Amino acid sequence: MNVIQNLKWRYATKAMNGQAVPQEKVDYILEAIRLSASSSGLQPYEVLVVTNPEVKQKIRAAAFDQSQVTDASHVLVFAAWDQYTEERINRVFERNNQERGLPNSATDAYRTRLIGMMSAKSAEENFHHAAKQAYIALGSALVAAAEQEVDSTPMEGFDNAEVDQILNLSEKGLRSAIVLPLGYRDETKDWLVTMKKVRTPKEELVTLV
Amino acid sequence: MNVIQNLKWRYATKAMNGQAVPQEKVDYILEAIRLSASSSGLQPYEVLVVTNPEVKQKIRAAAFDQSQVTDASHVLVFAAWDQYTEERINRVFERNNQERGLPNSATDAYRTRLIGMMSAKSAEENFHHAAKQAYIALGSALVAAAEQEVDSTPMEGFDNAEVDQILNLSEKGLRSAIVLPLGYRDETKDWLVTMKKVRTPKEELVTLV
Repeated sequence: MNVIQNLKWRYATKAMNGQAVPQEKVDYILEAIRLSASSSGLQPYEVLVVTNPEVKQKIRAAAFDQSQVTDASHVLVFAAWDQYTEERINRVFERNNQERGLPNSATDAYRTRLIGMMSAKSAEENFHHAAKQAYIALGSALVAAAEQEVDSTPMEGFDNAEVDQILNLSEKGLRSAIVLPLGYRDETKDWLVTMKKVRTPKEELVTLV
Repeated sequence: MNVIQNLKWRYATKAMNGQAVPQEKVDYILEAIRLSASSSGLQPYEVLVVTNPEVKQKIRAAAFDQSQVTDASHVLVFAAWDQYTEERINRVFERNNQERGLPNSATDAYRTRLIGMMSAKSAEENFHHAAKQAYIALGSALVAAAEQEVDSTPMEGFDNAEVDQILNLSEKGLRSAIVLPLGYRDETKDWLVTMKKVRTPKEELVTLV
């Protein structure tokens, strides 16, 4: 299927049937996340892949008891950097330069400007910026999952502080941004599966200038 | 090509050659944006497709003179709702219910809770939330463009207030979030085209729980 067909196929699955997603399909979706674009190539987030039933149960309780969290076989938690730091930014640039056979001086001016820009913003602004990059990866993940005919449910409806605590995110300098259960739809229980996909008409969404 | 191959093919093009992207490819990318997921299905953003050379020139000036803005044939500007309002939210739910043949009462409880939740947040928090949804669509757009072998450059490096003014966004209740020039790489001038794509190694990005 192409990207448009994948986007038409997918929907925010409301009920899953407990069937396990094969590891190679999970790996494919994670690779799509890993290859996604991000501002200055920083990839300022990590992805936790939760399969432990007890941990899934705790996340479900923190997510308004949404059943997909435990009926999915794999629950991806996108956790964004709580803020940009000189150390984090340097680490990415040093790896890039090393892999490209460039001296670190090649990117010094850009890197220094970037560190100055991000440190001038509040931690909260930094987190929003990092979380946005995770949303680009979410966009890739949703298309990749559909391509693999894996159902998924992007979720913002959870108690972020609780999920942070369940996964010990703050000690890693991370904050939860999005939860994405991966699994298979339960057609008999999912009220949304038979509903028409509705989107903003093109003439309202797009303006030519 | 599949999603992974598309993501490997694409890169943030640093120099474009001025060749025009055919309209059907632009339409394909816009349709991928239109079909993208968003929180509660609100699609809280619009997309301006700029082809007017004078307007592109002004945006380039507001974007640190990045040449892709004028060497791209189409410049997409993702502009997010400046805040959620009861009117905007009602409009989406009413359209959904109409298209699905449901009475508005079917979604009253959910809609009322959503309006309460968003109106409890500041306008700035509302904008961040809306902009994040645009980033999901950006993720789809980047995969769709690569599938069409169209180059693109996601840009955050521009003066948002200036771009808002150039496109009269504030009078539409919108704020610029991302600029995405679409065009074709100039291999002779683009320093990045020959560089290795570097990404965070999987063992650093992904943690199993």
